[in-house]
Amino acid sequence: MTDMTEIEMVIEQRAIERVLSDYAYYLDMNMPEAMADLFVDDCEVDYAPNFGAKGIEAYKKTLDGIDTFFKNTSHHNSGTVVDFVSPTEAKTRTIVLAIHRYMKDRPDGILYGQYFDTLVKVDGRWKFKVRELRTTMTTDYHVKAGNPIGRND
Amino acid sequence: MTDMTEIEMVIEQRAIERVLSDYAYYLDMNMPEAMADLFVDDCEVDYAPNFGAKGIEAYKKTLDGIDTFFKNTSHHNSGTVVDFVSPTEAKTRTIVLAIHRYMKDRPDGILYGQYFDTLVKVDGRWKFKVRELRTTMTTDYHVKAGNPIGRND
Amino acid sequence: MTDMTEIEMVIEQRAIERVLSDYAYYLDMNMPEAMADLFVDDCEVDYAPNFGAKGIEAYKKTLDGIDTFFKNTSHHNSGTVVDFVSPTEAKTRTIVLAIHRYMKDRPDGILYGQYFDTLVKVDGRWKFKVRELRTTMTTDYHVKAGNPIGRND
Repeated sequence: MTDMTEIEMVIEQRAIERVLSDYAYYLDMNMPEAMADLFVDDCEVDYAPNFGAKGIEAYKKTLDGIDTFFKNTSHHNSGTVVDFVSPTEAKTRTIVLAIHRYMKDRPDGILYGQYFDTLVKVDGRWKFKVRELRTTMTTDYHVKAGNPIGRND
Repeated sequence: MTDMTEIEMVIEQRAIERVLSDYAYYLDMNMPEAMADLFVDDCEVDYAPNFGAKGIEAYKKTLDGIDTFFKNTSHHNSGTVVDFVSPTEAKTRTIVLAIHRYMKDRPDGILYGQYFDTLVKVDGRWKFKVRELRTTMTTDYHVKAGNPIGRND
Repeated sequence: MTDMTEIEMVIEQRAIERVLSDYAYYLDMNMPEAMADLFVDDCEVDYAPNFGAKGIEAYKKTLDGIDTFFKNTSHHNSGTVVDFVSPTEAKTRTIVLAIHRYMKDRPDGILYGQYFDTLVKVDGRWKFKVRELRTTMTTDYHVKAGNPIGRND
């Protein structure tokens, strides 16, 4: 809980959702520089075991190959909830459906996942500080190991 | 129409969408108690003909078996619209895409549907009073009969 | 950039997203008149090369056949961002996943796309002035040519 008013939280949530939407769009457009600009320099990204990055330079390297590996991708976000830690820090949860069409002749890879993010507001702009992807399930997806969602048995 | 200001409606819509998002998340996480806590005691749930509940105790029973029937599910909400009946009652419509991976060896069941909900604000929290699912179409889904969406011929 | 306050932008964005949601819902419900009412008279619609309309009468003609061609459709919007040109004009981007079940015996057609819209506020109501669909990719879809998204190579 923070000292923010409910109006302030609505306004800031709109700005935060914009970042989440831009990430998905820039990824589908193969715009790695625009994606990297959505992250702070000391970001932490965790897409899967052994697939992540600490710091913006390491993160940029994870974006190499989007152009040669995928013919197209389509990322569909939903169910975003935002909890403010402070007026300049927020934790979010987003459900994602991501379809990957490969350059190689193989079936589309489908990822059903959950993003758990921390965003911080720096110089008036919200950016990703932490982005963690948890994998609910996949179909024909090239990444075999995912961070578990922790579903109850 | 109500006496609410547009600012109030935006603020309350954010709180209502949170409930819709939490329902989807708790369902995918197999958290039936957290799901039940999103409903008022005298709730009415109508998922399909002969598949629903009146009252929270009956509703809880419909949640039995999520853990043993599904290996995983992924619920993707979109297109939520909210109409306020009063400052403490709202009617909502949400489009849902739900993928069900079964414990049994069978293809994923896909549900394309529409939620029509009534939420009420009790003690400062929005909760489901009525949740009706209408089925647009399905693929390999285990529930064969659905409430029709009423599409024009 | 406009003279709108951030509160005003949040309020107007809610109204605009309602139009986007209603379009998807009315389309799935086969309600062409309700769809046409979401557009201004001098609208421009561009779904694909050689598939669009200038003006509301031409647009209405593009809606002919929804009832006989599709058994059902399900449109799932996400990632909407809204940029205000003025208090009565906005440009939006929305990601869409659309599943089409045909009357004919053929596999469901899937469209992964992006809407780029211009909406204008007339007599207090936001309506589509321009709606452009760009096609990310398709699966078994009956429309073969799409407007490209312009993904970087």
